[in-house]
Amino acid sequence: MFHPATKVTIIAERMLQSGIVKILEDDGAKGYTIVDGSGKGEHKSRDGDRASVVHDFSIIRIEVMFSDRKRAERVAEDVAAKYFRQYPGVVYLSPIEILRPERF
Amino acid sequence: MFHPATKVTIIAERMLQSGIVKILEDDGAKGYTIVDGSGKGEHKSRDGDRASVVHDFSIIRIEVMFSDRKRAERVAEDVAAKYFRQYPGVVYLSPIEILRPERF
Amino acid sequence: MFHPATKVTIIAERMLQSGIVKILEDDGAKGYTIVDGSGKGEHKSRDGDRASVVHDFSIIRIEVMFSDRKRAERVAEDVAAKYFRQYPGVVYLSPIEILRPERF
Repeated sequence: MFHPATKVTIIAERMLQSGIVKILEDDGAKGYTIVDGSGKGEHKSRDGDRASVVHDFSIIRIEVMFSDRKRAERVAEDVAAKYFRQYPGVVYLSPIEILRPERF
Repeated sequence: MFHPATKVTIIAERMLQSGIVKILEDDGAKGYTIVDGSGKGEHKSRDGDRASVVHDFSIIRIEVMFSDRKRAERVAEDVAAKYFRQYPGVVYLSPIEILRPERF
Repeated sequence: MFHPATKVTIIAERMLQSGIVKILEDDGAKGYTIVDGSGKGEHKSRDGDRASVVHDFSIIRIEVMFSDRKRAERVAEDVAAKYFRQYPGVVYLSPIEILRPERF
């Protein structure tokens, strides 16, 4: 029996990991996973004023799932507001289906 | 030309890798990918009786795709039934679109 | 405020990384992330003529996001046409929601 849920994926520089994890925990995430990687991107660095190109930075990819979409939106917005005006990175939502919604 | 398909993502402790891969192969998966990572989570350890908090375990993230949703559901249910009552971990389904459905 | 977008995920042998990244850049991708992994799969090696089983190859997983679905489709088709008739690998599209569509 599968239930709809929302996954938040956060891709960010590794140095932001502990700050992002604190947001997840403050917002009540029950579990998350972190995978290392590398990346490259063009990102606005200050709210649209100017653009900076960032090459080959060391990144983390964090995934966290919520059965309540509102909580997923809040985590995504909190992370974007705190970090992604200043630092390169991205956060997005994905529709998923899970087996035990009480765990998320 | 894109075709709807279902992706199964399994996040588990690394020690479960060979057992999970065996389920994928027994269920007829034609290919999968495995990425290493690290994670943390709060998980029920025995069917809801009590909860255990697991910190900083070494994890794998396995992805496998099926053009037949029923097969994706069966793999997800088989993995969850065999491992995720006892061990921390999560399995979820995602809607995707693929180019060559005969390969999945 | 979340906006619908399309994510392209490419799973390929590591030796194809620079060629795939060139396609992404030629097709106007503004950013992507790459994560290392390992994988196994059964794949047609030459346009359906014969099948080869590939074991335990070293892979990369590339993710790139587009607010314009047509561009996501073009990248996926270009990568598949150039590489995945000859080499093992997979490309798929996923529906996502993003916060700042002007960045993708």
